[in-house]
Amino acid sequence: MSRSIAPRIKGVLSPVVTPFKSDYSPDAERFVRHCRWLLSNNVGLAVFGTNSEGNSLSVEERMALLERLVEAGIDPARMMPGTGCCAISDSVRLSSHAVKLGCGGVLMLPPFYYKGVSDEGLYRNYAQIIEQIGDARLRIYLYQIPPVTQVPISVALIERLLKNYPQNIAGIKDTSGDWSYTKTVLDAFRGSGFDVFAGTETILLATMRGGGAGCISATANVNPAPIHSLFKTWEGSDADAQQESLNAVRRVFQKHPMIPALKQAIAHWSNDPGWSKVRPPLVELSNDQASVLVAELTQRGFHMPGLRALAEA
Amino acid sequence: MSRSIAPRIKGVLSPVVTPFKSDYSPDAERFVRHCRWLLSNNVGLAVFGTNSEGNSLSVEERMALLERLVEAGIDPARMMPGTGCCAISDSVRLSSHAVKLGCGGVLMLPPFYYKGVSDEGLYRNYAQIIEQIGDARLRIYLYQIPPVTQVPISVALIERLLKNYPQNIAGIKDTSGDWSYTKTVLDAFRGSGFDVFAGTETILLATMRGGGAGCISATANVNPAPIHSLFKTWEGSDADAQQESLNAVRRVFQKHPMIPALKQAIAHWSNDPGWSKVRPPLVELSNDQASVLVAELTQRGFHMPGLRALAEA
Repeated sequence: MSRSIAPRIKGVLSPVVTPFKSDYSPDAERFVRHCRWLLSNNVGLAVFGTNSEGNSLSVEERMALLERLVEAGIDPARMMPGTGCCAISDSVRLSSHAVKLGCGGVLMLPPFYYKGVSDEGLYRNYAQIIEQIGDARLRIYLYQIPPVTQVPISVALIERLLKNYPQNIAGIKDTSGDWSYTKTVLDAFRGSGFDVFAGTETILLATMRGGGAGCISATANVNPAPIHSLFKTWEGSDADAQQESLNAVRRVFQKHPMIPALKQAIAHWSNDPGWSKVRPPLVELSNDQASVLVAELTQRGFHMPGLRALAEA
Repeated sequence: MSRSIAPRIKGVLSPVVTPFKSDYSPDAERFVRHCRWLLSNNVGLAVFGTNSEGNSLSVEERMALLERLVEAGIDPARMMPGTGCCAISDSVRLSSHAVKLGCGGVLMLPPFYYKGVSDEGLYRNYAQIIEQIGDARLRIYLYQIPPVTQVPISVALIERLLKNYPQNIAGIKDTSGDWSYTKTVLDAFRGSGFDVFAGTETILLATMRGGGAGCISATANVNPAPIHSLFKTWEGSDADAQQESLNAVRRVFQKHPMIPALKQAIAHWSNDPGWSKVRPPLVELSNDQASVLVAELTQRGFHMPGLRALAEA
């Protein structure tokens, strides 16, 4: 267990999809395999995010999966688990556990049950969590995703948190879907050490040009190497072409519900049908939808190199 | 621990507000006292609802509080704890625990993280919970509150659940805020044994006239006897006047954020300032707001008979 402070996380991370067994229990072996494949493609592990069905897992299920990753020898410095819950007590427990395991950061949703809450209430939520954990190694990435949470994180809230907890407030994953918000955050905190991660690879190039730190994106689960390539070479002459190529892959996935589609692609290219299972309230793709997805991706020359070999090893 | 099946819950229930100590941990002693006061006013215990800050409590915190109520000798047949979580595993654990303790029912939110989910996915959520628990004593009251969850429960979903799990699907708490929905549900299931509880006392009379079973309402925390009185005498000649009197009290509370206002009233009339504490992301009333609330209620002759004596006993 690392006691030192890991280097700051940069680059591309994946909200790692969580595999389930036929009885809907989490499948740790498939999970470890997928994390290894992502890391081998230079993509970090934002486990228990939205696309991970993280909120469909209990606190205990998340802790057990995280421990399995560390036991499997995967570097916790590459992990940014989702730890933001509706209950402060849960957020404290998950975040404290992640810090003790040596995780590079935690991705923290605001409490998302109540709507129309004040900045003061959200400030107190984050402040309480930080105070109760009381550990300089805690690095919080705020998780802005109002289309899902309906609870936005304002720039004024970030400023107040950063002023009072500069050691613990490390950055943001911005899935606002609103470039004017992203731009405001990039400009407001440029050079401050507050790292802005795009919430989708479709704005990775624009985010890097604006001084961002990378992206945390659903499709990094299935298309990791090309997304990492753009991150590495965003200053190159073909960056716009790379961005358009990433967007084209996403457009195929976006014709379907994203999480079932990601799992279906993994099921297909790893030749492991069990991967398609999702927890309710999500529903897996129909056979027809799955056929369309695979056919369209195949037509584009899409595949997931190395995935099948790993699954069958 | 009761092994028999309790009689069906009817009448008025309160989403019991949850008191916190200065360190934000749940205060079981104040909680037991408030539950006793509500029961002495013929109001049942819908603990861990929206107005209970139920989703601001961890699974363990809810289970510990429920056990404390039972240990204190309070009849579990009068309890309808909130047990619907984003994670099926949590909903199963909480609901199973409630059944084992002999609770008269459980109030079950749909999983509320993902938005735009299908009826099929919501059906699978409830069906999985019922199947995994596998206990004929489990009585689920569906919790319809789309203004908060953003996840509505359709009439078609209720019909499908009721058809396949008639023993376990007992009714609904309807906080849709949409009388046309309430009316449709009342009409669709009249005489079927599916019990409709109004989600606010402002439509208690209309709900009873439409064949409903009672109400589960925030202000039952502070105004229990008058609300119960309307439930008992809704066929009387003064029912409309009673309803208007209840509405007038609610209007005073509605000038403020509801949960902090309820707790402030309890703090004042029990002479126990600690009651005003809320967990983030909620924020307690300011001193000015608290003064206005108490003054307006006092002017109306509002008080909470017996509460102070209980607190000081």
